[in-house]
Amino acid sequence: MRISIQTHLQYVMHGNGSLLLQIEAAQDDTQVIVQSNLHTKQPLAWNVIGGEDGVGQRRWAEVGGNFACSYHALVDIDRPSMQLPSLKTSPIAALSENVTPYIMPSRYCHPEAFFAFVPAQFGDASGGTLVQQMSDWIYDHFTYDNAASNGATTATDSFHAMAGVCRDYAHVLIAMARAVGIPARMASVYAPNVKPQDFHAVVEVYLEGAWHLVDPTGMADPDQMVRIGVGRDAADVSFMTSYGQMDLLAQTVDVQVIA
Amino acid sequence: MRISIQTHLQYVMHGNGSLLLQIEAAQDDTQVIVQSNLHTKQPLAWNVIGGEDGVGQRRWAEVGGNFACSYHALVDIDRPSMQLPSLKTSPIAALSENVTPYIMPSRYCHPEAFFAFVPAQFGDASGGTLVQQMSDWIYDHFTYDNAASNGATTATDSFHAMAGVCRDYAHVLIAMARAVGIPARMASVYAPNVKPQDFHAVVEVYLEGAWHLVDPTGMADPDQMVRIGVGRDAADVSFMTSYGQMDLLAQTVDVQVIA
Amino acid sequence: MRISIQTHLQYVMHGNGSLLLQIEAAQDDTQVIVQSNLHTKQPLAWNVIGGEDGVGQRRWAEVGGNFACSYHALVDIDRPSMQLPSLKTSPIAALSENVTPYIMPSRYCHPEAFFAFVPAQFGDASGGTLVQQMSDWIYDHFTYDNAASNGATTATDSFHAMAGVCRDYAHVLIAMARAVGIPARMASVYAPNVKPQDFHAVVEVYLEGAWHLVDPTGMADPDQMVRIGVGRDAADVSFMTSYGQMDLLAQTVDVQVIA
Amino acid sequence: MRISIQTHLQYVMHGNGSLLLQIEAAQDDTQVIVQSNLHTKQPLAWNVIGGEDGVGQRRWAEVGGNFACSYHALVDIDRPSMQLPSLKTSPIAALSENVTPYIMPSRYCHPEAFFAFVPAQFGDASGGTLVQQMSDWIYDHFTYDNAASNGATTATDSFHAMAGVCRDYAHVLIAMARAVGIPARMASVYAPNVKPQDFHAVVEVYLEGAWHLVDPTGMADPDQMVRIGVGRDAADVSFMTSYGQMDLLAQTVDVQVIA
Repeated sequence: MRISIQTHLQYVMHGNGSLLLQIEAAQDDTQVIVQSNLHTKQPLAWNVIGGEDGVGQRRWAEVGGNFACSYHALVDIDRPSMQLPSLKTSPIAALSENVTPYIMPSRYCHPEAFFAFVPAQFGDASGGTLVQQMSDWIYDHFTYDNAASNGATTATDSFHAMAGVCRDYAHVLIAMARAVGIPARMASVYAPNVKPQDFHAVVEVYLEGAWHLVDPTGMADPDQMVRIGVGRDAADVSFMTSYGQMDLLAQTVDVQVIA
Repeated sequence: MRISIQTHLQYVMHGNGSLLLQIEAAQDDTQVIVQSNLHTKQPLAWNVIGGEDGVGQRRWAEVGGNFACSYHALVDIDRPSMQLPSLKTSPIAALSENVTPYIMPSRYCHPEAFFAFVPAQFGDASGGTLVQQMSDWIYDHFTYDNAASNGATTATDSFHAMAGVCRDYAHVLIAMARAVGIPARMASVYAPNVKPQDFHAVVEVYLEGAWHLVDPTGMADPDQMVRIGVGRDAADVSFMTSYGQMDLLAQTVDVQVIA
Repeated sequence: MRISIQTHLQYVMHGNGSLLLQIEAAQDDTQVIVQSNLHTKQPLAWNVIGGEDGVGQRRWAEVGGNFACSYHALVDIDRPSMQLPSLKTSPIAALSENVTPYIMPSRYCHPEAFFAFVPAQFGDASGGTLVQQMSDWIYDHFTYDNAASNGATTATDSFHAMAGVCRDYAHVLIAMARAVGIPARMASVYAPNVKPQDFHAVVEVYLEGAWHLVDPTGMADPDQMVRIGVGRDAADVSFMTSYGQMDLLAQTVDVQVIA
Repeated sequence: MRISIQTHLQYVMHGNGSLLLQIEAAQDDTQVIVQSNLHTKQPLAWNVIGGEDGVGQRRWAEVGGNFACSYHALVDIDRPSMQLPSLKTSPIAALSENVTPYIMPSRYCHPEAFFAFVPAQFGDASGGTLVQQMSDWIYDHFTYDNAASNGATTATDSFHAMAGVCRDYAHVLIAMARAVGIPARMASVYAPNVKPQDFHAVVEVYLEGAWHLVDPTGMADPDQMVRIGVGRDAADVSFMTSYGQMDLLAQTVDVQVIA
């Protein structure tokens, strides 16, 4: 499946500051970048660095005043279908150095807040079956609401509000999965059916020795997701982080299936 | 300088569970392990993995019932003296992929809570001078008190309590440093003058392209610290993390300068 | 039913400080104090003030050094039995000035954290039926555990831990009730079957124009409770609040049904 | 001094719900209501109840659909000038039943978060001198910013942000005052120089046996404040609280000195 991505960002940095940009599709076995172009109005001295865990890339730059950036890419996705409920938990004590951080508490995801709730609500289910049940529970109980969260909202807060946006849905599933020893992280992705069109955040769980994409909002299908990057939670994979006061002027994301 | 480390842990795991152990001295250019031995009563199928950022190592094992472990090491430290106040800030936009995570918020260290306080309190100081002033401020205002914190205590909480143990002191300095764009992480160390003798937590700040050890408790001197591991905060570098209910029976740490 | 109460407190105040004591049975239509005696070793200049909402009384005193206090009372309880599930909600807009504060958020009880959960979990139930279902749900899911909470633990925290002591159980039910517009407050009581014997905290909900006692821990029966005082939450009805550093040396509570 | 107050509110309640309105000037020795009129478009069955602590009044009503309300009043203020720094602390153990609640923690004001900070920052100052210093400190360090807070923001949060609106400034001063045993509460007022014109929140501290108005935002002078009501914090004295989903359409407040 070929996906076309077109995104445009416009910001203004008051004075001078640094920004970290993470909007480019990652290249890997399951998604091949056929064509891509990142364009800024004025030339910038980019410091291009890898993404967390070697997934994708990020860019640092110093900017002052207006910052406008366009990104276009064509990506071919060939991600094998998987039956989440059939996947088994990887034994905790066998986790590698790269996966171990993803069962730890992080900025927005505190597994300890779900130690009691998960067994009380989901009983003896485990592995992919449990992840599917937790994801369905979030989907069934939560309301998608932009006004329900902000940059300080944790998984625990969202669990109480039973409302939020994609990153909040993802944080709750991540915290719940870690609460039962299933490594979980956030993936930032492009996907065609996200309404309204925007950068999207989903979950990756580690089962049977590999990472598997899950979207508790139900908006995106793993077969159609273009991964940008991964991290412990939204603190790691924001598409734009600024040091200095920066205001958003305009932002568009357009993702289409073209073949 | 040669340091002798002798530590002994005794726990009981109720039922079966997994534990992650991180108590061994790391090998690097500034500390050479002359001799070391890790001994457990019954043989365990250890899964030895690297520490965060390639510093030191950790061990996973499945255990049931009693778990006792002794670790002995002789380590030669040759860490060049440095004058912290003379060190300059590294430009944010020049940070590498490995250092970038350490300006982000983490489980216990929320820089955003210190965005207003740090400039209000420390004015225009920057780089190593600022780190020294912040470390001194913590040292001057905080009371070392075991009863003042627990596993949920964040840097923000400790800042209000102005009390805590080594990890709390470290969390506050880490959050303050990140608030002004200085990468900072926690290092778990052995040091001879820690009272009472125990695993110790200090801070590493990234200035002029390298990590530098700082101890806001004033108990340990960078020249005498044996690093075990590093991480974003205490969530990453606990000497012992258990999945399953495990109780402490006994624990001793003995660190001596022997030459 | 006649209840005998015997309680003894021993504290030491470091330097001089003020304490607020609230341990005496309240006198009202449903509980008559047949005999009572409050005794302190050295004479104290008590400032005796009413309890919150005119229920019971409290005492301020300045003390220095050792403070020991004994309280004995015989109380006849004649509290009409009520069938909680049969009681209807009082319309919010008809609440009086004295009841209105008890639907507001307070220190430990944030109803907004339960706006989404209560309808999701309990559906269309209302009034006493809903209160009974929420109390049963807490009783069924929570573990009574002294180590699970401290002076900073909110209803929201306890809800996540699904564990705590009587005040935590009470806080959760209070927050849930307020979340659906049912006024709820904490009552501090003596009751004979509390294990271990101690001051006890329960809930009062306002239904059909009156306050009704409910104990989500299941340890105390409204027919056997001797009320001491009431408040928005534990911040208001602690049996002992000190301004100055005061340490507990010994404390016993003995409550018996004697007729 | 004669003050003219003109306020207009327009809301829409989705479905039916209850609202609690607290916008009328309180009558007391220091402010005499010369003339007043509260007008709603459609007649409402108001349940008029007293304000907290007998200050002012509130109104409950059930409404559905559009709700518009106009309030006009002329108030003569004759509040004796006082020199805050000259006032002494009232001994804690002498506090009455009505004042005692105002040293306790409340929804938004947790004194315990300031136990360490206040003595560290303000040293040995006490009474009105200390209150003045704390109020000045807040005025000097804080930025007035609507975007810096929301309905969940506590005094502790605002202290970190060093930013907020009048209620946030007030919460911080209240929490700091209680931290050193000075009773403090929130007063909702009208005042002529508030920019932009709006309902205003200030602090009342209890010193030398009486309540005294203080405004840490510096916008209002006690001689020109018309008190509406008081409470432990903003949870008690909101000008409008709704049970049911209600949206703001328009709101104007106009306060003028007319003689």
